[in-house]
Amino acid sequence: MPVYQVTTAADLLSDEQRQQIATEVTRIHTSHTGAPELFVNVVFSEVPAGRTFTAGERSQMSFIVGQIREGREIEVRQAMLAELSAMWIEVTGHGDRDLLLAIQENDSRAAMEAGLIFPAPGTEAEWFTENKDKLVALGLVEA
Amino acid sequence: MPVYQVTTAADLLSDEQRQQIATEVTRIHTSHTGAPELFVNVVFSEVPAGRTFTAGERSQMSFIVGQIREGREIEVRQAMLAELSAMWIEVTGHGDRDLLLAIQENDSRAAMEAGLIFPAPGTEAEWFTENKDKLVALGLVEA
Amino acid sequence: MPVYQVTTAADLLSDEQRQQIATEVTRIHTSHTGAPELFVNVVFSEVPAGRTFTAGERSQMSFIVGQIREGREIEVRQAMLAELSAMWIEVTGHGDRDLLLAIQENDSRAAMEAGLIFPAPGTEAEWFTENKDKLVALGLVEA
Repeated sequence: MPVYQVTTAADLLSDEQRQQIATEVTRIHTSHTGAPELFVNVVFSEVPAGRTFTAGERSQMSFIVGQIREGREIEVRQAMLAELSAMWIEVTGHGDRDLLLAIQENDSRAAMEAGLIFPAPGTEAEWFTENKDKLVALGLVEA
Repeated sequence: MPVYQVTTAADLLSDEQRQQIATEVTRIHTSHTGAPELFVNVVFSEVPAGRTFTAGERSQMSFIVGQIREGREIEVRQAMLAELSAMWIEVTGHGDRDLLLAIQENDSRAAMEAGLIFPAPGTEAEWFTENKDKLVALGLVEA
Repeated sequence: MPVYQVTTAADLLSDEQRQQIATEVTRIHTSHTGAPELFVNVVFSEVPAGRTFTAGERSQMSFIVGQIREGREIEVRQAMLAELSAMWIEVTGHGDRDLLLAIQENDSRAAMEAGLIFPAPGTEAEWFTENKDKLVALGLVEA
């Protein structure tokens, strides 16, 4: 965690754009929060054309919804939203007219990766130290 | 925001039913909350048959999950659930036996559309006034 | 509710594994919470290979996200996460290196199944008694 889910109409994005977006989402999240890159997941889902409606009519809306660990200041979350929106325009060439972004919070104590409960925001260094043996064994960090 | 995600088995719904459901979800949300139609998104996702289980056995469950801006009274949310459930029966011809609905709340300060942070519930009019130039330029409201 | 959403790359799981996972998720949730089996839904979604990124690079991450009724002790949620993670290793033969799990809470008052608002955790028996006629009519419980 975080998990950023990007949902678009089918074929809106190319493989290259998906890679660029994943790189940028990871950079934006880690630079604003100090979270380790290893925690940042981006998943791209598609729906067939014609399956998204806005104001009751078929639309071209895309969605970026980030599930992040609870506890980031609202100013941090809003700065990430602004940067994600600007990134979308630059990478896709689409405007921000048809993009909805949301950041949702999840109790870090109720999320797990590699069999380990996530640390609270700001306590990542201690977590890596405590769990170093397992993380090295899994190849997730260097010895 | 809101975003209502409708998840069903593949081919449960026709294009016409999807349009009807989108129209009705939009009407139900705006009439109960006073939110503008422009904010209401409906997305239809499908999973292949046999990918949904209830009580450990394959089921025909469909799901309507609405992510709405935080702060609506519980009575409003429950009235929307009841009306959505009744609408489902009428539009699809299926009963409510295999329909699960949920409304989740998202901090309006942590959601963005058209590059703009959403207003809190009840402050939409001020928001449209403040952001009129951009919204007109995007063609989202009339000049 | 709960709804457990399992998201993987396409073809990671077989039909038999999906059935086993659904059975085990249902057992784990009911044994830790006392919730009735009837409430437990598991949905399997897939994304094409190459659509999941971790630390900015393509990854094989799978996701199990449970939306449960609000109010379970954190110890209960963490015990479920640990057991779900161990179950994943056993059923899939994959390690827990590429599995992210999260449990999210939803206000039980804002969720509905079979046209009925869900009971709060711990009040299921009263709910079944109050709604017995409808539940029997729908074939969801025995007379």
